[in-house]
Amino acid sequence: MSGTISVMQFGCGPIGCSIVRLAARRVSLSVCGAVDIDPALAGRDLGEVAGAGAGLATAVRSDAQAALAELRPDLVFHTTGSKVADVYDQLALIAAAGANVVSTCEELAFPAYREPELAERLHALALRHGVSILGTGVNPGFLMDTWPLFMSTLCADVRRVRVVRIQDATGRRVPFQRKIGAGMSVAEFDAAVAGGAFGHVGLQESAAMLAAGLGWRLDAISESIEPVLLDRDVRSEHVSVPAGTVAGLKQVAVGTRNGEPAVELEFQAYLGAPRSYETVSLAGTPPLEVTIDGGTPGDTATAAIVVNSAAAVAAAAPGLYSMKDMPVVGCTA
Amino acid sequence: MSGTISVMQFGCGPIGCSIVRLAARRVSLSVCGAVDIDPALAGRDLGEVAGAGAGLATAVRSDAQAALAELRPDLVFHTTGSKVADVYDQLALIAAAGANVVSTCEELAFPAYREPELAERLHALALRHGVSILGTGVNPGFLMDTWPLFMSTLCADVRRVRVVRIQDATGRRVPFQRKIGAGMSVAEFDAAVAGGAFGHVGLQESAAMLAAGLGWRLDAISESIEPVLLDRDVRSEHVSVPAGTVAGLKQVAVGTRNGEPAVELEFQAYLGAPRSYETVSLAGTPPLEVTIDGGTPGDTATAAIVVNSAAAVAAAAPGLYSMKDMPVVGCTA
Repeated sequence: MSGTISVMQFGCGPIGCSIVRLAARRVSLSVCGAVDIDPALAGRDLGEVAGAGAGLATAVRSDAQAALAELRPDLVFHTTGSKVADVYDQLALIAAAGANVVSTCEELAFPAYREPELAERLHALALRHGVSILGTGVNPGFLMDTWPLFMSTLCADVRRVRVVRIQDATGRRVPFQRKIGAGMSVAEFDAAVAGGAFGHVGLQESAAMLAAGLGWRLDAISESIEPVLLDRDVRSEHVSVPAGTVAGLKQVAVGTRNGEPAVELEFQAYLGAPRSYETVSLAGTPPLEVTIDGGTPGDTATAAIVVNSAAAVAAAAPGLYSMKDMPVVGCTA
Repeated sequence: MSGTISVMQFGCGPIGCSIVRLAARRVSLSVCGAVDIDPALAGRDLGEVAGAGAGLATAVRSDAQAALAELRPDLVFHTTGSKVADVYDQLALIAAAGANVVSTCEELAFPAYREPELAERLHALALRHGVSILGTGVNPGFLMDTWPLFMSTLCADVRRVRVVRIQDATGRRVPFQRKIGAGMSVAEFDAAVAGGAFGHVGLQESAAMLAAGLGWRLDAISESIEPVLLDRDVRSEHVSVPAGTVAGLKQVAVGTRNGEPAVELEFQAYLGAPRSYETVSLAGTPPLEVTIDGGTPGDTATAAIVVNSAAAVAAAAPGLYSMKDMPVVGCTA
């Protein structure tokens, strides 16, 4: 890929704004515009909305189709929803406009798992319009799927993969702290879990992607979610958690193969975790244990992985991709 | 890639034999033959030579050209030498026979660095014959180049990369222990270094590949090598190292960018190292520190990475590749 890639931001929430700030600093990218459904943002200067300074000289639009037709971006950073069914029409619109897509939609990290039909339709759309579509992010998209798969390159055989991600949520955004249940009573937490739309989206996608990359056919993937309770009070700047109420969540997905657990993904995010880290453990030949000491800050890393993927997605042959199928991306300039 | 990939082994030294043993166990690969220059191996059963059991039913050949013409492998595992100039004719022969190549030739991990003309010729040959050629291995090829590049995907920016690999050589093969100088006097070590053909080949290739992946133009890459001396006696099963003699080596490559160290690669392999590990440290946003606790056994992992790469290389568009340009490989079945 030579020349600058013109990029449009689709969705100006916190992650979208982080992406715009980072993309604005990259010499290989040129931010040509942004869209968002919030009427309060329409017409406002994108640089100001995103905190990216005055250099962007473009306003946030509300009509995505018109913006795509007028700006004709090479690539769109898409950050509006977690479910493929919810964002399918947006992705189809972008593809029809001839733009490549990098999306943080969690289910799109491995859409064949939950939405095989929509995944096939997206792949067909990508081929028809000559564009590439990638679902990515730090988790799903990297820490619990692509990273363990990448490390397994060192192994003659792998019998079992375990990934543990422990995050002290104290320094994270308040919406993230709320999202993990911090400050809830146990009854509120249980009600939220029973209500469905609660917890981290993407563990099962990660398990499915990792298994597919290893050539494994899983029998099933199960998932559990439970509150993390501490025997002491903890607090962040905005949320207090008295002892015995919910400090955060522990979510586990287990993929079984030939009746045995083969993929185990454990995600814990709570206020007061003594140490943040991610560890990949591969039971195989050789066994490997790899740890990111101090952990990976989710928001910064998600914006980075999205922006870093732009050049590879723009250069890829048309189609729908998961991270396991991409070349090594790396931090590009 | 569907169907079985037929593979031929080119070079039946210890690594070549490890590759044959592993490839023989893979359902996606079919070992069709092997060549070696050692007359003592010619005509001997490959399964017996490689310790792969009786199932291979093929003899080691000495005439590579005839073997390639007769066996017509899809892909050749090539493990004969460290320098591109030394193995160029072999690679050209394999390419001309229409076979893809995965080679452990250290300089071939990033041949543009030391042998840009030969690299261009190999790329042209690959295109002409419709084959793909990959230089890989655990180091160079993974731990000090592809791995830190892969981890940098999580970073918004990277200013500096440091990789440290410490290996306790006690359990390694005797030739490896000799190769790192274990048991030499300091004078012998210095003479060996002055003689040139001593030390680990590939640190500079790793630095150059990593920089290229990050889009960095380095001013220069320097390399140093010195003995590791301990104040106590150490020994392996076959080598004794009295205090004050050489237990192994410490080799460092530093790539500078805009006058500052930007890539620092440190490799230490010696008898009696208290702990084996590899650590990647990325100075950037966010900073990252990632460690393989216990380290990576070089011989097992090199055979694995070579065999794991077969399907991706067979499926790649024709050309000469480095690991940074490959899709995520993973441990395949």
